[in-house]
Amino acid sequence: MKKDFIYNEIADNIASKIKTGVLQAGERLASVRILSREHGISINTAKRVFLELEAQSLVQSRPQSGYFVSPLPYLKLPLPQASQPLPTANITEPNELIDSVYSNMGNKELTLLSIGVPSGNLLPLAKLKKEVVLATRALKEGGTEYEPLQGNVKLRRMIAARSLAWEGHLKESDVVTTAGCMNALTLCLMALTKPGDTVAMESPCYPGILQLALSLRLKVLEVATDPVKGVNLDALKALLPQINVCLLVPNFNTPLGYCMPDDQKKAVVMLLEKHDIPLIEDDTYGDLYFGTERPKCCKSFDTKGNVLYCGSVSKTLAPGYRVGWVAPGKYKEQIMRLKMIHALSSTSVINEAVGNFLMTGRYENHLRHLRKTLQENYQRYALAIAEFFPVGTKISRPQGGLALWVEFPEGIDTATLYNYAMKKQISIAPGRMFTLQEQFHNCMRLCIGLPWTDDLRLTLKQIGNLAKWMVAKA
Amino acid sequence: MKKDFIYNEIADNIASKIKTGVLQAGERLASVRILSREHGISINTAKRVFLELEAQSLVQSRPQSGYFVSPLPYLKLPLPQASQPLPTANITEPNELIDSVYSNMGNKELTLLSIGVPSGNLLPLAKLKKEVVLATRALKEGGTEYEPLQGNVKLRRMIAARSLAWEGHLKESDVVTTAGCMNALTLCLMALTKPGDTVAMESPCYPGILQLALSLRLKVLEVATDPVKGVNLDALKALLPQINVCLLVPNFNTPLGYCMPDDQKKAVVMLLEKHDIPLIEDDTYGDLYFGTERPKCCKSFDTKGNVLYCGSVSKTLAPGYRVGWVAPGKYKEQIMRLKMIHALSSTSVINEAVGNFLMTGRYENHLRHLRKTLQENYQRYALAIAEFFPVGTKISRPQGGLALWVEFPEGIDTATLYNYAMKKQISIAPGRMFTLQEQFHNCMRLCIGLPWTDDLRLTLKQIGNLAKWMVAKA
Repeated sequence: MKKDFIYNEIADNIASKIKTGVLQAGERLASVRILSREHGISINTAKRVFLELEAQSLVQSRPQSGYFVSPLPYLKLPLPQASQPLPTANITEPNELIDSVYSNMGNKELTLLSIGVPSGNLLPLAKLKKEVVLATRALKEGGTEYEPLQGNVKLRRMIAARSLAWEGHLKESDVVTTAGCMNALTLCLMALTKPGDTVAMESPCYPGILQLALSLRLKVLEVATDPVKGVNLDALKALLPQINVCLLVPNFNTPLGYCMPDDQKKAVVMLLEKHDIPLIEDDTYGDLYFGTERPKCCKSFDTKGNVLYCGSVSKTLAPGYRVGWVAPGKYKEQIMRLKMIHALSSTSVINEAVGNFLMTGRYENHLRHLRKTLQENYQRYALAIAEFFPVGTKISRPQGGLALWVEFPEGIDTATLYNYAMKKQISIAPGRMFTLQEQFHNCMRLCIGLPWTDDLRLTLKQIGNLAKWMVAKA
Repeated sequence: MKKDFIYNEIADNIASKIKTGVLQAGERLASVRILSREHGISINTAKRVFLELEAQSLVQSRPQSGYFVSPLPYLKLPLPQASQPLPTANITEPNELIDSVYSNMGNKELTLLSIGVPSGNLLPLAKLKKEVVLATRALKEGGTEYEPLQGNVKLRRMIAARSLAWEGHLKESDVVTTAGCMNALTLCLMALTKPGDTVAMESPCYPGILQLALSLRLKVLEVATDPVKGVNLDALKALLPQINVCLLVPNFNTPLGYCMPDDQKKAVVMLLEKHDIPLIEDDTYGDLYFGTERPKCCKSFDTKGNVLYCGSVSKTLAPGYRVGWVAPGKYKEQIMRLKMIHALSSTSVINEAVGNFLMTGRYENHLRHLRKTLQENYQRYALAIAEFFPVGTKISRPQGGLALWVEFPEGIDTATLYNYAMKKQISIAPGRMFTLQEQFHNCMRLCIGLPWTDDLRLTLKQIGNLAKWMVAKA
């Protein structure tokens, strides 16, 4: 286990140097022998490091010469621009587009690059099924009875235990279960706002969150956001006087996939606390990191209970289970009251099954596999994009999560591209869905949670060809 | 099957004559032979009719003389008064009382007469467990995937099929699944109102509905309600100019248990339709009728799509499953949009299991048993109340459902009685919970969904003794 950790850590470290350009394409790497000596590891472990890097297409071996950094064409693709939304609220809703894209949900005829969940092929289905069967049999009344209002105690205990990894130090009494993360966000926004209040969010932002805020008759302020570091603190600061509550997804935000640096997380927490503005943190993607370490959360820096920490297993284990939670800090009483009114209970048997599954340690094992697959997928998608998409295409550098953000050259309208792609049974998520303003028309989000196949590569090629054809036509 | 039906029908018919006083205590009934001849049934079937009535304590046999109507002391207990709420909105919330009573949920130490769900002992647990296990195994991805937005198609098909019994004529495309009935009501109120709007409800009313309306910042108008016929149409008519939406529970409303007569249902539908006021109908208790026929709903008389029909299996099958639905009539698009934003999907595997269960016909069988138990419980509760409660106590005459409403003599404050009872590990639901106004202080709701035992009878005696002691003290 320890050995496995070292080998992964070294490989990740080298991978990171390659991706950030510290090691350049074509550059020769230290030999197996030197690597072994430098890190005090066996020759075999050192070899595994290189095999791992080779599997990720990051290095190539040349006979008699050793390992060299691969030419990685996608690393030359520029980053998307930092967003610059207007500092005013609620302009226009992309309702038709959203309805159209969401109506594809569950349609087995389509390649669903538009959704934000991992494919069933990447989930531990057999083990989950077993846990549901066991829980159904073990519960005295088979889960027909209401749970205690705060939620299944095993599940809450495991959420608390897992918070140690990101220095959250939650106790089981801090956690309230919900029907998925969106339900947690709903309870938080209902508890903290009244209609007409203003909520600040990152831009681009997950459409479900934008729609949720509007359905609660809130004003939405989209904040300028950097594709690598997340929300722009100066931009947020300038908007503070207008804001009643802030909702952020600092870890592997969909669609951009950045991980907000720790110092920025801390700064946001301090800033909002100082101005007495509650922070709702959506950490649904937090366990899907591509690096070696579970990133911290804003909640990690919260000493006053001002951060309402939300999560779920919908992106890691089972979208259809509707299992989520919130650690609402000092707002626990309001959240419990709203849960009592709007839900009363979660689905007892499923929450018991997930609680048990988390206790087995299988979750950690599954996450390790899932993270590796998603990271490899990102690289494969990126290579295909570099190969097939029009000159001038930009892509995000996700550090975790399920999404890749693509910015086409100006003039390619992705709502139109969506219509063309649908004729070929491909569903993408046009950029305009991720904002209430007129921006991101030439962007789209691709889900990287599908199993990689030759067909998927051809699907990406088809999208690229459509985009090239649109460029030529224009 | 046919024979069984006839025997039940005849027994119910006689029972109804006894309960309404057409047949008086002590009166002699037709002999087995005459009954057999009159109805063209066998002697054995006729005997079963009397055995059934005897089991319900409605008749007694005297050797050599035949069957006589039992003295039914509870039928002499007067009915509670029709409510007379003020024609103004939102006065005071009984929050502390509600929090205290709801915090007892799931507490196995208490006799929970305060809750409104059937005890697990009355549910088909083994069969339900089996369906969950089968569904978990049968679904390709074990229910980890999202359902289609509108919900599980088998479940929607069965809800539609079952609507024939109350002349609802729903199609599966008319139905949207939700996480229990409260979630259906939430979606309806959110779709139809904006904060500051006014919703009219029966009085007394289920506390969860009152709380829901307040949490959506609605004004609540409580409408005068008769304990036998339901909402007073003249009172409703007088309030129409102030009302944006009406929410009624016409079948076996908790706490009063009345069944609104068909002509009144039709009149309400016409009245609200004429004034373009949508009607949200909560029919969660509709299948729990004590008579021989499934009552119609307001939705049965809706030709314009103005009635949003809501239901669930929480009161008949499994509170902890969170399976409910709405047939939103002409408001389907708004409801679907809100479901997309707030839930996305129900819990796939549980909805599949319930859909399958409803298809087996076992549900009908289970309901028959449950209805019989609840009806017998009502009579046993009523007998115990007649025996043990203070002189002047009034009780409702539920025609179905899970609740019995008790009105003590003036001066017995049931919030105080609640505190005394809790010291004896008994939880009741004080009347003040069922209103936002200052009324029903001397009332309480008792759940009749617990299995009848000698202990339960003693529990009712304890409550009666406490109440008598409070009378004596005053």
